[in-house]
Amino acid sequence: MSAPAYSAAELADRFGLTVVGDPATVVRGVATLAGATPDTLGFLANPRYRAQLSASRAGIVVMRAEDAEGHAGTALLARDPYATFARIAALFEPVDAFEAGVHPTAVVDATARIDPGAHIGPHVVVGARSVIDAGASLGPGCIVGEDCHVGAGAQLIARVTLVTRVRIGQRVRIHPGAVLGADGFGLAMEAGRWLKVPQLGGVVIGDDCEIGANTTIDRGALEDTILEEDVRLDNQIQVGHNVVIGAHTAMAGCSAVAGSARIGRYCLVGGGAGILGHLEVCDRVIVTAMSLVTHSIREPGEYSSGTPIMDNRAWRKSAARFKQLDALARRLAGTDKD
Amino acid sequence: MSAPAYSAAELADRFGLTVVGDPATVVRGVATLAGATPDTLGFLANPRYRAQLSASRAGIVVMRAEDAEGHAGTALLARDPYATFARIAALFEPVDAFEAGVHPTAVVDATARIDPGAHIGPHVVVGARSVIDAGASLGPGCIVGEDCHVGAGAQLIARVTLVTRVRIGQRVRIHPGAVLGADGFGLAMEAGRWLKVPQLGGVVIGDDCEIGANTTIDRGALEDTILEEDVRLDNQIQVGHNVVIGAHTAMAGCSAVAGSARIGRYCLVGGGAGILGHLEVCDRVIVTAMSLVTHSIREPGEYSSGTPIMDNRAWRKSAARFKQLDALARRLAGTDKD
Amino acid sequence: MSAPAYSAAELADRFGLTVVGDPATVVRGVATLAGATPDTLGFLANPRYRAQLSASRAGIVVMRAEDAEGHAGTALLARDPYATFARIAALFEPVDAFEAGVHPTAVVDATARIDPGAHIGPHVVVGARSVIDAGASLGPGCIVGEDCHVGAGAQLIARVTLVTRVRIGQRVRIHPGAVLGADGFGLAMEAGRWLKVPQLGGVVIGDDCEIGANTTIDRGALEDTILEEDVRLDNQIQVGHNVVIGAHTAMAGCSAVAGSARIGRYCLVGGGAGILGHLEVCDRVIVTAMSLVTHSIREPGEYSSGTPIMDNRAWRKSAARFKQLDALARRLAGTDKD
Repeated sequence: MSAPAYSAAELADRFGLTVVGDPATVVRGVATLAGATPDTLGFLANPRYRAQLSASRAGIVVMRAEDAEGHAGTALLARDPYATFARIAALFEPVDAFEAGVHPTAVVDATARIDPGAHIGPHVVVGARSVIDAGASLGPGCIVGEDCHVGAGAQLIARVTLVTRVRIGQRVRIHPGAVLGADGFGLAMEAGRWLKVPQLGGVVIGDDCEIGANTTIDRGALEDTILEEDVRLDNQIQVGHNVVIGAHTAMAGCSAVAGSARIGRYCLVGGGAGILGHLEVCDRVIVTAMSLVTHSIREPGEYSSGTPIMDNRAWRKSAARFKQLDALARRLAGTDKD
Repeated sequence: MSAPAYSAAELADRFGLTVVGDPATVVRGVATLAGATPDTLGFLANPRYRAQLSASRAGIVVMRAEDAEGHAGTALLARDPYATFARIAALFEPVDAFEAGVHPTAVVDATARIDPGAHIGPHVVVGARSVIDAGASLGPGCIVGEDCHVGAGAQLIARVTLVTRVRIGQRVRIHPGAVLGADGFGLAMEAGRWLKVPQLGGVVIGDDCEIGANTTIDRGALEDTILEEDVRLDNQIQVGHNVVIGAHTAMAGCSAVAGSARIGRYCLVGGGAGILGHLEVCDRVIVTAMSLVTHSIREPGEYSSGTPIMDNRAWRKSAARFKQLDALARRLAGTDKD
Repeated sequence: MSAPAYSAAELADRFGLTVVGDPATVVRGVATLAGATPDTLGFLANPRYRAQLSASRAGIVVMRAEDAEGHAGTALLARDPYATFARIAALFEPVDAFEAGVHPTAVVDATARIDPGAHIGPHVVVGARSVIDAGASLGPGCIVGEDCHVGAGAQLIARVTLVTRVRIGQRVRIHPGAVLGADGFGLAMEAGRWLKVPQLGGVVIGDDCEIGANTTIDRGALEDTILEEDVRLDNQIQVGHNVVIGAHTAMAGCSAVAGSARIGRYCLVGGGAGILGHLEVCDRVIVTAMSLVTHSIREPGEYSSGTPIMDNRAWRKSAARFKQLDALARRLAGTDKD
């Protein structure tokens, strides 16, 4: 595992960047500005961190042209330093060992079809009629139930469960503990007991989606639960049955979408936020962390609920007054006639 | 896998319904009103969806008698169309292959007792002194620790973990990633370090409960954590040690109950809602999504906390004023003497 | 499994306590005051439960000297009854069977180093270059990826996943379903599509930490995600990449910390609470349940957000007024000039 090394000139050439300073400067890794050493490359994307630039020991720094004025060291000028940094960092990422073939401890149903160019790891189970395409990787402990399809180049890192009728697009990446295609939560009350409503749909995950650790995506009741392409879900997200999430939407950890909600494209959902069921959120909506969306949103923009964090003693006073708000408002309006 | 087919007459006969229209109409599946085709059956339970009825191509629609007036197509009249639909849909549900016996890759302790009519799937582990009853199914990757009991007909779909001293009732259904019987979170601070409090109790799950994917139910500290019969938990729910949840209560995804809380029967807990520990919630309480119950509730009814979703700019103004609420109220009352 | 038995005199001797009553009283287990029988030991730590003392049938009760006045039965006097009880309860805890060695169904990479005094359970997978120290236990179904290190005496109960570059300290206890070292959630938007930012760091877990079921701790983007020693995390907690959590901090179930936040030592984070990214929380901060920390906290103390639980009808009125708060305040101030 000798680490790769790149000169500023090589990186400029590969990614279409401009070198300022010494093109022969060589880096063997990437780092934060604060943690960088002379043989690593850092980046400056947010002007807030400008103060760190002068103190940084980074051999090369990726930055915008306007930030480079007066910079003494070697820089690579980029229109979008963060995206450029992401591409450079990928050069230093250890590549997962990928061996095509089925591990001897895997249990594969006779009716499943595994492409010879797929990797099926130790203790994996693949159920009846499921199909695994070329270049797909099922890491250790993954369980693929019946009637599933894993697209070309998809990576189920480890211990991912696809319960039944789950279709995974190409290049999708799913992290450990995620469960796709479990029964949606459908119940009818009958004579004082719950009656289970069969969940006959499936799950469809578009190309290039990413699904975080321990995230759950239920299968649909009658139709499918759908993630369009390039949807990015962080860890511990819950997606109810028959939800549709539009392309390029990203959701942060612990957020949740209840059944049959439709989320638009290019939305950003903050950590711990909730979206109730049977409603629509249009494209390009931002929901801030731990907010609860209780009705459809039809205008792009940023939406919030909740109250600010306060010292507990002060908060208790505000909280007590919150209960009296209607009475206070009526008194103010002089309409308190009771 | 030729799909089953049923005529309106057969369904009416089987479920005690009245046919309106052509009793010979045959359906081969179920669908939403909007997605239905002439060979599928739909339902109308919520008057809100009445507009979809006339446009629907469904071969048969299950509905209330009062909704059927003027309906041109074939209908099955039911007192409770949703529950009736659930029963009909179950006819079209693919039946999981169930093979009694122990898969050769399973690891079963010599002191465990597996009923010959139980199914033990691939890569399952069953620990010392655990008992698996007839008709129970442990799907792939399930782990049953020591001193557990899985009741007749219970289904652990896949990759479920019962850690220790967990008793599962009959016909319970547990979805992948659920963890029952892990240590409760018991800590004592001693001389500046945490001291672990042993968790000596177990978990008891009543008959007919359902437990969602990645839900966690800790075992009790001294006594047991208990779910009475027919409790329905969605995905990613957290139930702390020594909690008791009454029969027929349903909790939506990502809700949580802290240690030693007692929830009544027929409660409904909304998604992401929290219930603090060492308190009681009486029967037939509804807690709306993302609300936090901080004290005991002794009257049936619906309870909420939080603030409405707003445009972020307007929200910021309200949030800033929330901090001043006590001062505002005092000024309004003319009691602001500072 | 004959249960152990201890006399009051033996316990007093072992833990440095004072006996009141009959030193020959023998107990064979521990219990709550309410559930105790004459052959079990209970404790009184919280004066709130004093009323239960006189009714309790416990053979021995651990309590403070000042609570023992007038107590008729046998007592053990302790400065900290709860911590003392925890130590006594541990005497009655069933000891997990621990067998050194590698189970024949485990799959261990040729370059991994397993100490002969470690336990590697059924269906475990250990990847390249990972090291498992003496006395460490990987329970059934655990997956340890590449370049990980599990310290001496650490216990991965079952089905724990360490993805890559995860270092676990000594005596750490990790519960089922936990995922450590998955990719942090790093994304850059480029030309309308998400670009994945490589996650090149690792995770470092200090000695004596405990990590709950289905909790997720992502690996760092460039540097490591760090838990210092004796951090205690309950179930279903999410810790983002590059977070640092100080020693002796405890977090309750379903709480979450976003990327690059730094939490101090001896903090207590309530259930479902959230801490946004790129901020600092100083030592000895308490965040109450379901509160959201949106900015750095620099003073020790207790902090809260949210509103109190209310009857839904009353809550609706307060919630509607919350939206008008700024207008109400302006009217009150006489500054409403629009």
